[in-house]
Amino acid sequence: MKPPLFFEEDRVEVDASLDRLMPAEAAQPPSIHQAMRYSVFAGGKRIRPILCLETARIFDSNVTPAHYPACAIEFIHTYSLIHDDLPALDNDDLRRGKPTSHKKFGEAAAILAGDALLTLAFETIAATPVDASRRVAMLTEISTAAGTINGMVGGQVADLEAEGKRINKEMLEYIHLSKTAALIRASISSGALCAGASTEDVVRLRSFGESLGLLFQVTDDILDVEETSAALGKTAGKDAAQQKATYPAVHGLERSHQIANELAAKSINELTPYGQRATRLREIAEYLVQRRA
Amino acid sequence: MKPPLFFEEDRVEVDASLDRLMPAEAAQPPSIHQAMRYSVFAGGKRIRPILCLETARIFDSNVTPAHYPACAIEFIHTYSLIHDDLPALDNDDLRRGKPTSHKKFGEAAAILAGDALLTLAFETIAATPVDASRRVAMLTEISTAAGTINGMVGGQVADLEAEGKRINKEMLEYIHLSKTAALIRASISSGALCAGASTEDVVRLRSFGESLGLLFQVTDDILDVEETSAALGKTAGKDAAQQKATYPAVHGLERSHQIANELAAKSINELTPYGQRATRLREIAEYLVQRRA
Repeated sequence: MKPPLFFEEDRVEVDASLDRLMPAEAAQPPSIHQAMRYSVFAGGKRIRPILCLETARIFDSNVTPAHYPACAIEFIHTYSLIHDDLPALDNDDLRRGKPTSHKKFGEAAAILAGDALLTLAFETIAATPVDASRRVAMLTEISTAAGTINGMVGGQVADLEAEGKRINKEMLEYIHLSKTAALIRASISSGALCAGASTEDVVRLRSFGESLGLLFQVTDDILDVEETSAALGKTAGKDAAQQKATYPAVHGLERSHQIANELAAKSINELTPYGQRATRLREIAEYLVQRRA
Repeated sequence: MKPPLFFEEDRVEVDASLDRLMPAEAAQPPSIHQAMRYSVFAGGKRIRPILCLETARIFDSNVTPAHYPACAIEFIHTYSLIHDDLPALDNDDLRRGKPTSHKKFGEAAAILAGDALLTLAFETIAATPVDASRRVAMLTEISTAAGTINGMVGGQVADLEAEGKRINKEMLEYIHLSKTAALIRASISSGALCAGASTEDVVRLRSFGESLGLLFQVTDDILDVEETSAALGKTAGKDAAQQKATYPAVHGLERSHQIANELAAKSINELTPYGQRATRLREIAEYLVQRRA
């Protein structure tokens, strides 16, 4: 299944914003800006920024301000990939078919490029052209999602510690919710907050975002089992080789597909109050459950 | 010369705030919170938080809100030490007489503990009990100071790249201003912003902060040459051994002392408009130029 048509249009706009919101490659010291740009423009699908923009669009047809949190989250996602790939963590040489940051620039540069992207994310939130209370609300939402308490770094730690161990369903869900779903949820809720959504809407969309984020990770786990490396653009079967905590490993493949379908239905159900305005978010959920890469 | 008497009182209060604003050690997953707390409570002098609190006190006798940016900056400072000590960067085994984070917890945990502290810094700014516009102003100030454009990470990159090379005075000043002075300046300006200082005051105190930050690094460079490891609680003579860019290496020791005195005078001069209200900031500048550790 191909991505929805608006993906490509959004992706082009997101790439332009990422370029505009990052320091120029020539800015002093150039080496760090080269390393930052190399990873940000390494061919990401921009799922998180697209979710942010399309959620903002439900509440405001002008999504220009939402490009800021959208890019901030992409910077955070990219920093997490750079640091995850380091020799001390997942020790990956390739990412999306290209050398990882530390293979290309050395470990010191990769560590610092990750640090710099995380920092730039927060500079970007600060610069969002909406009133200060919305900026603070997005800051809380995004920083919490990236942190250790039910957030991305906490999930990454638990994921590393679970390698090679038998873990139960609760721990698996905790890892996936923290490691992946939290930042996807924040992409959606920060888009809503940026566009002035009500508290009720933000709460509902957080719930949508959590189901969608979990769906994203479950389908990622399934693809790692079912697809070839060529189709994925990364090494397939890596989760099993590294004895990672995955849905297929804990629930089996058939049940994992069921769970993915249930999560898609649950997330789409949360969108009912928005009717036609949520068509694009619905299409994203439908795409995620059927994607083959 | 001993630190001013209020240092100890402030330090005790800062330590209590750091403890309160960090996740409990037992919070899931405990390993990351142990590593974060280990480095935050490894015996730091808390210069940056003290500067933040004492600047806030010029404008508001209630410095409770200023504990938030003060701790945020200490989290950023601590993350930078953890990452700087990594094998791929300065490869230090000891920090303040204790094993560095990666020696104690392993490299993966050290990388993630640094990431987590940087993230927590921004969660902490978001939670500061002042109005949203002040929180956004502090966010801009602190994130910029920690970033790559004339900020901490940029300075760290330039510092690594300067190792073993002959560098000129301009590059040396750029490195010290970015690597060290930017975050010290932000400690001061964020304290002022938190307490509601006027734009004019913030501009003046940024200038004070920049001179004081540069003074701090120049005296640090001098101490590395003149003092013993025992007095410093870290390896003395390390800058020369690593061929680091320092004031004594570029200007000679005598001229470095002169520069330190000039920076102290310049910074103290900026405080004139505040009279008695700036006594403590003045004492800090006088202490920094005369300290032996």
